[in-house]
Amino acid sequence: MSRHKIKFLPNNTEITVEQGENLIRVAMEAGVHINASCGGEGVCGKCRVIIEDGNVEGGITEKLSQEDLENGYRQACLASVQNDLVVRIPVESEVDTSILNLQKTPRRKARIWEMNLEELKEKGLFVSPVEKKYLELPEPTPQDNLPDVTRLVSFLKAKHDEHRLVVQLPVIRKIPDVLRKDGFKVTATLARPVHSGRKTHIINIQPGDTTDRNYAIAVDVGTTTIYSQLIDLITGDVLASFGEYNGQISYGEDVISRIIYASKPNGLQKLHEVVIATINKLIKKMIKRARIDSDEISSITLAGNTTMTQLMLGINPKYIRLSPYVPASTLFSPIKAIDLGFALEDHVTALVYPAISSYVGGDVVAGVMGSGMYRTEKLTLFMDIGTNAEIVIGNKDWLACAACSAGPAFEGGGIEFGMRAAKGAIEDFSMDPVTFEPMNITIGNVRPKGICGSGLIIIAATMFEMGVIDNRSKFNRDLDTPRIRETDGIFEYVLAWKDESQIDRDITLTEPDLDNLMRAKGAIYSGCMTLLEEVGLNMSDIDSIYLAGGFGSYVDLEKAMVIGLLPEIDPDRIRFIGNGSLMGAKMSSLTNRIRKDVVEVTKRMTNFELSETASFMNNYVAALFLPHTDMDQFPKLKARLEARRALKQ
Amino acid sequence: MSRHKIKFLPNNTEITVEQGENLIRVAMEAGVHINASCGGEGVCGKCRVIIEDGNVEGGITEKLSQEDLENGYRQACLASVQNDLVVRIPVESEVDTSILNLQKTPRRKARIWEMNLEELKEKGLFVSPVEKKYLELPEPTPQDNLPDVTRLVSFLKAKHDEHRLVVQLPVIRKIPDVLRKDGFKVTATLARPVHSGRKTHIINIQPGDTTDRNYAIAVDVGTTTIYSQLIDLITGDVLASFGEYNGQISYGEDVISRIIYASKPNGLQKLHEVVIATINKLIKKMIKRARIDSDEISSITLAGNTTMTQLMLGINPKYIRLSPYVPASTLFSPIKAIDLGFALEDHVTALVYPAISSYVGGDVVAGVMGSGMYRTEKLTLFMDIGTNAEIVIGNKDWLACAACSAGPAFEGGGIEFGMRAAKGAIEDFSMDPVTFEPMNITIGNVRPKGICGSGLIIIAATMFEMGVIDNRSKFNRDLDTPRIRETDGIFEYVLAWKDESQIDRDITLTEPDLDNLMRAKGAIYSGCMTLLEEVGLNMSDIDSIYLAGGFGSYVDLEKAMVIGLLPEIDPDRIRFIGNGSLMGAKMSSLTNRIRKDVVEVTKRMTNFELSETASFMNNYVAALFLPHTDMDQFPKLKARLEARRALKQ
Repeated sequence: MSRHKIKFLPNNTEITVEQGENLIRVAMEAGVHINASCGGEGVCGKCRVIIEDGNVEGGITEKLSQEDLENGYRQACLASVQNDLVVRIPVESEVDTSILNLQKTPRRKARIWEMNLEELKEKGLFVSPVEKKYLELPEPTPQDNLPDVTRLVSFLKAKHDEHRLVVQLPVIRKIPDVLRKDGFKVTATLARPVHSGRKTHIINIQPGDTTDRNYAIAVDVGTTTIYSQLIDLITGDVLASFGEYNGQISYGEDVISRIIYASKPNGLQKLHEVVIATINKLIKKMIKRARIDSDEISSITLAGNTTMTQLMLGINPKYIRLSPYVPASTLFSPIKAIDLGFALEDHVTALVYPAISSYVGGDVVAGVMGSGMYRTEKLTLFMDIGTNAEIVIGNKDWLACAACSAGPAFEGGGIEFGMRAAKGAIEDFSMDPVTFEPMNITIGNVRPKGICGSGLIIIAATMFEMGVIDNRSKFNRDLDTPRIRETDGIFEYVLAWKDESQIDRDITLTEPDLDNLMRAKGAIYSGCMTLLEEVGLNMSDIDSIYLAGGFGSYVDLEKAMVIGLLPEIDPDRIRFIGNGSLMGAKMSSLTNRIRKDVVEVTKRMTNFELSETASFMNNYVAALFLPHTDMDQFPKLKARLEARRALKQ
Repeated sequence: MSRHKIKFLPNNTEITVEQGENLIRVAMEAGVHINASCGGEGVCGKCRVIIEDGNVEGGITEKLSQEDLENGYRQACLASVQNDLVVRIPVESEVDTSILNLQKTPRRKARIWEMNLEELKEKGLFVSPVEKKYLELPEPTPQDNLPDVTRLVSFLKAKHDEHRLVVQLPVIRKIPDVLRKDGFKVTATLARPVHSGRKTHIINIQPGDTTDRNYAIAVDVGTTTIYSQLIDLITGDVLASFGEYNGQISYGEDVISRIIYASKPNGLQKLHEVVIATINKLIKKMIKRARIDSDEISSITLAGNTTMTQLMLGINPKYIRLSPYVPASTLFSPIKAIDLGFALEDHVTALVYPAISSYVGGDVVAGVMGSGMYRTEKLTLFMDIGTNAEIVIGNKDWLACAACSAGPAFEGGGIEFGMRAAKGAIEDFSMDPVTFEPMNITIGNVRPKGICGSGLIIIAATMFEMGVIDNRSKFNRDLDTPRIRETDGIFEYVLAWKDESQIDRDITLTEPDLDNLMRAKGAIYSGCMTLLEEVGLNMSDIDSIYLAGGFGSYVDLEKAMVIGLLPEIDPDRIRFIGNGSLMGAKMSSLTNRIRKDVVEVTKRMTNFELSETASFMNNYVAALFLPHTDMDQFPKLKARLEARRALKQ
């Protein structure tokens, strides 16, 4: 794919982008504001730009006259890049370019961290938990009529130096016929003990040589969505991966409503069954997609939050919700997959990620394992941001964790026009510093329907930097724009007018919305602060940040620092690890080293109940400002705001 | 119960017996012959005796005239002892008392060996596999909100020095509610590892203090009958015991027919289900009888022959029947009882006795464990006699075993009038040395229906000693008695005439019957011989014999030596251990020491396939004589026979 250089005038911003990219998104990426209310559907007709050099495809609508077109006008939201361009933004009011430049904070998404299997292998972190051995056993004779299992075990001892072997009943049942199917030539599947000295289990026996086929399943059991991967244990490749909504959604959207449902008659059983059914659906799809035989699957590793884990295991989670928030168990021995109802062969073992507490679950532990933060010297902050945010701080010597209830603001909850990150959600935003006109970018480039979490952060941060809201997130009452108004005593900003939206209403962001955002980001930031204080450290001691969860991949790092959700840190030191839970489950499937480490990690990880930590409330109140009461924690932002103030004076 | 002295005239035999005992049985016990064909029902009227001193109850029938009664005549079979007696046997023909005395071999049943729990405890052989601990846990607080399982495990570590604890899912599911039912006062059931250093499992949790209730189940899974015991793990007492016919009987009487049935469509599944159903029936009866709660049962230990074990475990036994007779497995890890279909709680573990080979099964190993022969210096011969006879020879240093197909003669099979030991079976026998008239004693004192195994041995031995049959078990053609006759070219002895029997036919013992008996006893004796030869020993090296199985309790030891079924040995050195399989299962329920030893024993026990041992056929042919080709192996019998010959000449 060829790349093209785009120069925006009048402020001379340059950016290099892929062929075919949407011009308004290119501008947004470059930090160039173009008025745009309708999200990129060409409806509002505001995003007029002049192509001074080069060519775009599209961008021609009835909103542009013949004269406009001849003068090079195009609608940026409908135009795509074809070659190098010079694009002029028609500035309606004369703006000081120094202010324009101040505004220019290019979008900084977190870099994606990926597991490097080869590197891990080199570090000795790969100790395969399941190995296949092809064996040509001597056939029994009247002089040598050992029991079949003894023949197999003795041969493995004598010829393969395998010791402490155990064979469970389901495999014993298969052995006699399998041995005789191909003249005592068989493949035995050995499951290695996590701790040396323990027993090796012969978990399967197959006729002939099947050593090239050995698979495992990894599952992230999310409250909303369940993701799964089918993993080739020989190459480490993911052969298939699917996601499905957790079937439990019909019984309650969040963890609390599920816990309540579980205490109804047969509720626990029902929730157990539907989550297993969802996972079975995924298993079937993966087996079909990868065209493998289910007999070749050796293990299934599952990670989920504490409530999802207990429901999956059929353990009533009711005490998780009641003070003092006690989970039934955080550690689970390997379980026979069929005992949980999984549609797998009876030799398959289910491994369930251990949790730390009622609100720091196996999904977080899996993320910590996947990230490798527990193996490094450097101090890392791990954050999984959702309705509940989980925070882990530490390194190879110690780990501290806490959960804080951020509320559903980042998932669109408690926000008047909040919504999940779906088509029509405003995901990016810019504002004209003089007219305060918006530039809305929506998912799917359609007319806006609402605001998703990542959009909310960008809007709030932009408004704060523009002085549209103050550090208590209240609108500046003195600005001359129709977009800021008071409705029924509530101040709000109109992001899109009724006729530009999909919902036949003005889409606004209100002060109560901003209050909810403040509480959410305040809870998370103060959680980090409190946890650091408890271990005697500061935000500045943090070397790097890992963001996990779907939210982390979309959040604009600079803007998140502006609102004080993230501590101010070089964005290069922030990594997005994606679905940490699934990644950890995958790693445990691939190596016993991780399975062993995880037990150590759970022992090493200290849980802090923030509600029981005296300083948490003070930190929380201090964090209910933009970015924070203590501006010295955000020195770069402080400098920018001071520069802006100086310019304005 | 008072005891009385009975003196029999004319040969002055004295015996002391219990009040109320049947007079004809007293005579038999004393080795005194009284003609009696009808088994003790008063029908034949032959067993007339004269009460010369003392009184009997009953014995008066229409077969006796008023004069007879006045002269003290009574029918012995209907008379019972009330006080000291002098009883004269009216000798119809004048018999030399020296011959009478030769005949006098009082019945010698094997002494019953019983487990002495106290002695075993003193020897340190009792290491309880399951222990209950009453715990008063601290209740959770906001400052101490450990997961429930962690709270339990930590407390056991800190206060009870319990380490390496594991809790499986079924128990985890119960823990939260059980802890809160009685203010965190609970009883935990701990299953100890057999090998130190392994894990202790918390297998149950109950509210309050239940430490006084802790039970286990032991089961002998026989081909014909299944016996079970409910054991109090605190006292070692058997609280209930029941037997039931194995439900598999409908699908074949013996092991081979079951194996064949198992290979039919769904046959294995069916046989598995019905044996489990039989055991479940026993479990329910025992729980009901002992009035215990099934939640208090911790384990079920099962022993059976190799085929019964495989069928119970759902493992197709087809290769057991096919050369070279390979069982699937002889060692089985503990299995969850509910996984096998047992009607027990889901925390219950099923322990299955290991086998040695296709025909030396877990029932034999259990017998060896129960007998303790593997712990002594002395050389012991262990025999479990049934259709298949299993032989174990050895001591604490080594053990050798073999199985031989005795055929069903001892269970009444292949014998014209053979039957199981049930009502109407001739179980004891004596013969007038001059008239060759029989004295039949039947089970239940009713008219005879047939001959059971123990009766068969006594009849054959008596006939041999009387010279009625020779050492090739052929009838003496020269004797003057209507009871020996030739029918359709086959010689036979009439035990009971048609009108004395229950079956409207003469009951006879034929030469082909005797041939079958010879083959059965010959197989067993030559099995012992061959096994001894293989380890370089002789019969005379054997210090003691343990007889296991139902047959052993009834067999007359002296007579068994006369026919050469048992080697000639002081009867005091023979012990009957009864159901060795059930005894071993009980011991494993009671102590981990036995569970540990059993693994060692199976490793130490060498199996000999007699069919593959060159000398077996020679030994077998040599054993097809009464008592044996080599009379020097039976010196006492040899002396008796020589004395008799001297008298006759």
